[in-house]
Amino acid sequence: MRMGMIGVGRMGGDMVRRLLKGGHECVVHARRPSSMEPLVREGALGAAPLAELVSLLPKPRVVWLMIPAASVDRVIADIAPLLDAGDILIDGGNSHYHDDIRRCDELRDRSIHYLDVGTSGGVWGLERGYCLMIGGEREAVQYLDPLFATLAPGRGAAPDSPGRSDSGSSAERGYLHCGPSGAGHFVKMVHNGIEYGMMAAYAEGFNILAHANIGSQERETDAETTPLRDPRHFRFELNLADIAELWRRGSVVSSWLLDLTARALAAGQGLERFSGQVSDSGEGRWTVATAIEAGVPAPVLATALFQRFSSRGEADFADRLLSAMRYEFGGHHEKSTSGEG
Amino acid sequence: MRMGMIGVGRMGGDMVRRLLKGGHECVVHARRPSSMEPLVREGALGAAPLAELVSLLPKPRVVWLMIPAASVDRVIADIAPLLDAGDILIDGGNSHYHDDIRRCDELRDRSIHYLDVGTSGGVWGLERGYCLMIGGEREAVQYLDPLFATLAPGRGAAPDSPGRSDSGSSAERGYLHCGPSGAGHFVKMVHNGIEYGMMAAYAEGFNILAHANIGSQERETDAETTPLRDPRHFRFELNLADIAELWRRGSVVSSWLLDLTARALAAGQGLERFSGQVSDSGEGRWTVATAIEAGVPAPVLATALFQRFSSRGEADFADRLLSAMRYEFGGHHEKSTSGEG
Amino acid sequence: MRMGMIGVGRMGGDMVRRLLKGGHECVVHARRPSSMEPLVREGALGAAPLAELVSLLPKPRVVWLMIPAASVDRVIADIAPLLDAGDILIDGGNSHYHDDIRRCDELRDRSIHYLDVGTSGGVWGLERGYCLMIGGEREAVQYLDPLFATLAPGRGAAPDSPGRSDSGSSAERGYLHCGPSGAGHFVKMVHNGIEYGMMAAYAEGFNILAHANIGSQERETDAETTPLRDPRHFRFELNLADIAELWRRGSVVSSWLLDLTARALAAGQGLERFSGQVSDSGEGRWTVATAIEAGVPAPVLATALFQRFSSRGEADFADRLLSAMRYEFGGHHEKSTSGEG
Amino acid sequence: MRMGMIGVGRMGGDMVRRLLKGGHECVVHARRPSSMEPLVREGALGAAPLAELVSLLPKPRVVWLMIPAASVDRVIADIAPLLDAGDILIDGGNSHYHDDIRRCDELRDRSIHYLDVGTSGGVWGLERGYCLMIGGEREAVQYLDPLFATLAPGRGAAPDSPGRSDSGSSAERGYLHCGPSGAGHFVKMVHNGIEYGMMAAYAEGFNILAHANIGSQERETDAETTPLRDPRHFRFELNLADIAELWRRGSVVSSWLLDLTARALAAGQGLERFSGQVSDSGEGRWTVATAIEAGVPAPVLATALFQRFSSRGEADFADRLLSAMRYEFGGHHEKSTSGEG
Repeated sequence: MRMGMIGVGRMGGDMVRRLLKGGHECVVHARRPSSMEPLVREGALGAAPLAELVSLLPKPRVVWLMIPAASVDRVIADIAPLLDAGDILIDGGNSHYHDDIRRCDELRDRSIHYLDVGTSGGVWGLERGYCLMIGGEREAVQYLDPLFATLAPGRGAAPDSPGRSDSGSSAERGYLHCGPSGAGHFVKMVHNGIEYGMMAAYAEGFNILAHANIGSQERETDAETTPLRDPRHFRFELNLADIAELWRRGSVVSSWLLDLTARALAAGQGLERFSGQVSDSGEGRWTVATAIEAGVPAPVLATALFQRFSSRGEADFADRLLSAMRYEFGGHHEKSTSGEG
Repeated sequence: MRMGMIGVGRMGGDMVRRLLKGGHECVVHARRPSSMEPLVREGALGAAPLAELVSLLPKPRVVWLMIPAASVDRVIADIAPLLDAGDILIDGGNSHYHDDIRRCDELRDRSIHYLDVGTSGGVWGLERGYCLMIGGEREAVQYLDPLFATLAPGRGAAPDSPGRSDSGSSAERGYLHCGPSGAGHFVKMVHNGIEYGMMAAYAEGFNILAHANIGSQERETDAETTPLRDPRHFRFELNLADIAELWRRGSVVSSWLLDLTARALAAGQGLERFSGQVSDSGEGRWTVATAIEAGVPAPVLATALFQRFSSRGEADFADRLLSAMRYEFGGHHEKSTSGEG
Repeated sequence: MRMGMIGVGRMGGDMVRRLLKGGHECVVHARRPSSMEPLVREGALGAAPLAELVSLLPKPRVVWLMIPAASVDRVIADIAPLLDAGDILIDGGNSHYHDDIRRCDELRDRSIHYLDVGTSGGVWGLERGYCLMIGGEREAVQYLDPLFATLAPGRGAAPDSPGRSDSGSSAERGYLHCGPSGAGHFVKMVHNGIEYGMMAAYAEGFNILAHANIGSQERETDAETTPLRDPRHFRFELNLADIAELWRRGSVVSSWLLDLTARALAAGQGLERFSGQVSDSGEGRWTVATAIEAGVPAPVLATALFQRFSSRGEADFADRLLSAMRYEFGGHHEKSTSGEG
Repeated sequence: MRMGMIGVGRMGGDMVRRLLKGGHECVVHARRPSSMEPLVREGALGAAPLAELVSLLPKPRVVWLMIPAASVDRVIADIAPLLDAGDILIDGGNSHYHDDIRRCDELRDRSIHYLDVGTSGGVWGLERGYCLMIGGEREAVQYLDPLFATLAPGRGAAPDSPGRSDSGSSAERGYLHCGPSGAGHFVKMVHNGIEYGMMAAYAEGFNILAHANIGSQERETDAETTPLRDPRHFRFELNLADIAELWRRGSVVSSWLLDLTARALAAGQGLERFSGQVSDSGEGRWTVATAIEAGVPAPVLATALFQRFSSRGEADFADRLLSAMRYEFGGHHEKSTSGEG
C-alpha cells in the first residue's frame, strides 16, 4: 500500500523503514527536506511541498502524521484543503484524546476520515514492532489493516493467552481498533500512566536496595536525624545490576521495563551520568487528570507523576515552608536541634 | 545431589518435582504423611519422623524448609539437635530477614550453616523455574550450586543484556548469592514490594479504562455529585481483555504480570468471581517499614499497600469521620445537599 | 448599602441575615418565591421577577449570586441584559476560576464588572463571619468594601500575627482582594484542597487510634492474613472523643476542623450514623488538576481526594483485578491460601 | 507538690518554670550543672548528683525525665536503684511506646510506677500550656493530678464542645489519662503523624499558590517540557502572607499551624532563610509503621513522611533510575528530546 508520512523524526523515520521493509511504498515529507534524505536513499519518495505529497498518493489518500502534538492542528489546517472526500488522515503522535474528538468532528464535514493511533515502542519499534492503539471509524481502520499489520509486532511477539486462541482480534498481532475517535489516544494515555506507575515501583524498590548498606556508614547523630534502630539490619552491599538481571528470569516482576533497567544498570550501577531531573510528557498528566474527572482513584499513578515534578525541584517551596513551620513551633533550625511537637 | 525437603505444599512439592526431574534425590517430610504420597510415587523418599529424614541424608546434610514463616523457628528447634557441624539448613519460605540474621547467629554456635533463599515463581515455578535470591555464607552457597541451577529457570529464560555477556554471575541463570545472611530475603522482600506497586499501576489503569463509558450512563445530579464537565469525553466501551492482550506485544508496559492480567480478563472481563478484598502477605508491609527505617521514600509502594488495606474495609472509620466533619461544617448529609467549605 | 442577592439557600440566606444585621439593605430573589419569605420577614425586600430586583437597586447596582455553579452562566445570561454599564455582578459560589476569567471577559464588553468571591464558612458563617477571597477589578472591589467588611469575621477573630500590626491589608479583617478575575476562586479552590488534606490527616490518625485495640481481638489465622508481630502492642481502648477534646488545648494539631471533629465524636464515637460514602465537591478535584497542569507536586492533596473516590466504591474494579492477578500467579483464592510471589 | 526534673533543655526548663509559677517545688538535675543555674535563680533547687535529687524529694518520689529518647534507658538504669517502692518515674520525652510497655514491666518488679507522658506544645508551652497524653496506672496518674493540671493549658484554652459540658474528663483542661502503659506515647505518636499530614497539606497548597504566576514567565519549549495548555490561567501574583493571614479568620482551614504559617510568611514570603531539607523526628515514622503493622491505611500520613525524606535527597537514586529507563526506551536525554512510550 502506498501511504504518506509527515514527520520523519526518530519515530516517523523508523516507521517508514518498517513499512518499506514490509513491502509498502512511502511518500515522506518533513519541514527540513534534508532530514528526508536517508529515507529516500532507503527507498522512500521525498515530497518537499505538501501538495507534492498529496499528488503522489492514490485515492483514497492515506496520510500519517508523526509530529509533535503541538503542531498537529497547524499541519491539518495546511493539508486538509488539499485532500478529498474519503481520504484518511492519521495522527500517530501523542495528542490529547479530547483534540481527536474535536478534529474528527471538524474533518467529518469535509468527509475526511481521521484516525488517532497511539503508538508505543520508542526507539525499539523498528526492530520489535509498534504496539498500535487505534481510534476512529471502523471502515477506515479496516482499509488500513495492511499498514497496521506491518507496523505491529505480530502474533509471535508473545505466546497466546489461554482461552483466546480463536479470539479473532488483531490484539494478538499487536494492534487494536479500540473504539471511535479518541479511543486510541485514550488507551495510549492510560498505557503511559501505567508506565509511570511501573517505573516508579522499580525506582523505589531499587532505591531501597541501594540504601541497604546504610548501617555500615557513619551517620550524623544530631537530634534532627532519627538513628537506625539496629544498624546490623542495613549492612548489605547489594549488586543492583545482578539483581535486575536475576529478576528477569522466573520472577513475578519480570517485564520489558526491567529488561531496560538491567541494561541501564549494566552500564554502571551508580547511574552517575543521569542527574535525576525526570521529565514527563503529557500522557501521565492527562491520565491522572482524566481519572479525577471520572472520579476514579489513581493514587499510585498520581504519586508517580508527582515524584517526577519533585525531582525537578518543584516541591522546593513546599519544603521550605515545612522547615519554616518546624522552626515556628519548635524552634527547630534545619539540621540542628531537638524533637518535634 | 541428595537433599531433604521439609514441607510439601504447593511450593515445596513442585520444587521437589523440579529437582527430581533434574536428576537429584529428594527426601521429603511433611506434618501430614499422606501429603507426601504423590511425591513418593514420583520418586521421592518419604520420611515420616524428622530423625528418619536426617538419617537418610549424606553429610554434609542439606535440609530445605518450605513451610509457613510462622513455623520456621519451631521446626529449626526440632531439627537442629539432629544435625551435625557443617550441615546446611535453608529457609526457602517468606521469613522476615531480621529473623534470618538472628537464626544464622544462633546456628553458627552449632557450626550449622543457615541460608535464606527468597523464592519467586508461585504456581508457575515447576514449569518456568524459580527465581532464587540467596543470602548466607559463600561456601555453603557454592556447595548447593547444583540444586540452585536446577531450580532456577536457566540462561535461556531471557535474552542476555548487552554488556553482561561475560559477567560470570549466576544471575543470568536465575539465581544469585545476594550477600550475607538475610540478604536473600531482603532482596525478595523488595521484589514483592515492587510487585505490589506494579500490580497497583495496572489495576488503577484498567480501572480508568473500565470507567471510560461513564458519559453514556445516567448520573445522579444532586449537589453532592460533581458532574462530568463533558460527557462526550467518556463514551468509550473498551474491551479490556483485548487491550491487555494488545499491550503484551511491543508496548512499554509488557510484563509477566500483564500476561497474567490478560489471562484473567480473557476469562471474563467483569472479574465478577472476585470480591475485591485483596490480601497482603508480609513482604509488602516489610518493604515499606524497611524504607521508613532507612529513611528512603517509597510513596508508590506504600500507596499500593494501603490500597489493599482499604479494599478490606480498614478505611471505613476514617471515611465515616470525613462524612461527620462535612456534616459539622457544612450541614452536608451524605449524598444529599450542597457545596463545601 | 443596598444590594441584591440571587439565591437564598443556606449560604445566601445567612449572608443576607448577616448583611441586614450589619445595617445593609438586601433585595432578594429566588427561583421559588416561597423560599424568600423568611428573609422578607427579617427585613429583606423580595423580588419575584429578576427585573424587579434590578429595578429596586440603585446604580451602580450590586448583584450577588449565591447559586449552584452549574446555574451561574444561565442566570448571568438572564440578568446581564437588565444591567447597565458600571453595575457589579458577584459570583460568590463555587465556580471554577477558568469560568470567572471567561465571564469577566464577556461582561467587560458590556462594561459590567464581574467579581469572583470564594466564600468559606459554611453553616457557621452567620455567627463566625465569612472568609472572603476576592478576584476582579480593584475599583469594584473597593466600592464593595462595606459589604465585605460586614460579611467577614473582623479583626478580633484571631490575634494579630507579629510583624503585621500595620500591614494595611484587609486580610486581618477576614477578606482579601487576591488579584484579577479568577484569583478569588483560585485561592478558594486551593483552600478547599488543603481542607481535604487536613481532613484526611485527622481521619487517618483517628482511624489508627480506633484500631489500637486489635491485639485484644480474635484474629483469623489463615495464610492470607498477616498476624500481628506482638498483640500486646495493640491493646489500648482509647476514648476518641476525649482525645479530640484534649488536642484542642495546647497541641500542635489544634484547629477549627478538630473542634468540629470533637463535636462529632462527642455525639457518639462510633459515628454509626454515617455510612462513610464521602462526597467531594469540585474544588478538591480542581486543585489537584491545577497542580498537575502547573507541574506542582500535590501528592497529599491527591491522595486525600482519591480516598473519597474509593470510599464510594470507585476502586472496586481495581481491587478485583488485584485479586485476579494474585489468583493467576499464586493460585491465591481471596482469603484462603498461602504466600505471595 | 515537690517533684524532680531530669533534663532542663528547652522543654524541661520551661516545664519547670510553669510548675514553679503554679506553686510547685522543683528539684532539677542536668548533665551539665551550669545549665541548671537559670532555673535555680528562678526558684528551683539544683541537684548535681542524681542521689542528691532523690534525697531532696519526699516519698513517694516523683521524678520526671525530659531528655532525649536515646538516653532514657540509661538514666532509668542509673536512678532506679536509688528509688523505693511506690516512687513514680515519668518519661515526658519522645519515647517509642513499645519501650514504655517494656520499661513498665521491668520497673513493676521493683514496685516503681512508670508513666509515659506525650507532651505537645514546643517552645510555646510555657505560655500556652502543654497538652499532656498520659499512659500508666490510674493510681499514679491520679496522684500527679496537681502537676498535670498546672502544666496543661486549662479549660479556658478552648470553648467547650456542645454535649460535653459535664464530661468529667480532664481532656477539657488539656491533659488525659489515655490508658495503660504506652497509651500516652501512642496517642502522642499519632498526634505527630497527623501533624505531618496537616503540615504537608498546607505546604502543598501554598506551593500551588506560589506557582500561580507561571503563565507570566518564559518557559522552555523543548519536547521534555509539557507546555501550559493556557498560560492565562496562571497569571496571578498572589500575596501568600496575606492569604495565610486571611484564612486564620472564618475559614475551614484555620488552625494553630496556620497561625504559625502566617508568622513565618510575614517574616518574608520567599522563606529564603530555609533550605528545604526537612527533618523528621521518630513519631511520624512510627505512626506509619504502626499503621502498617495494624493493617490500617494511612496513605496521606505516609506520603507526608516520604516527602520529607525526598526533601533531603533520599529519592535521588530513584530519580536517576527513572531518567535511565527513559533513556533506554525512548532515547530521551534528560531535558532534551521527544515524547514518551
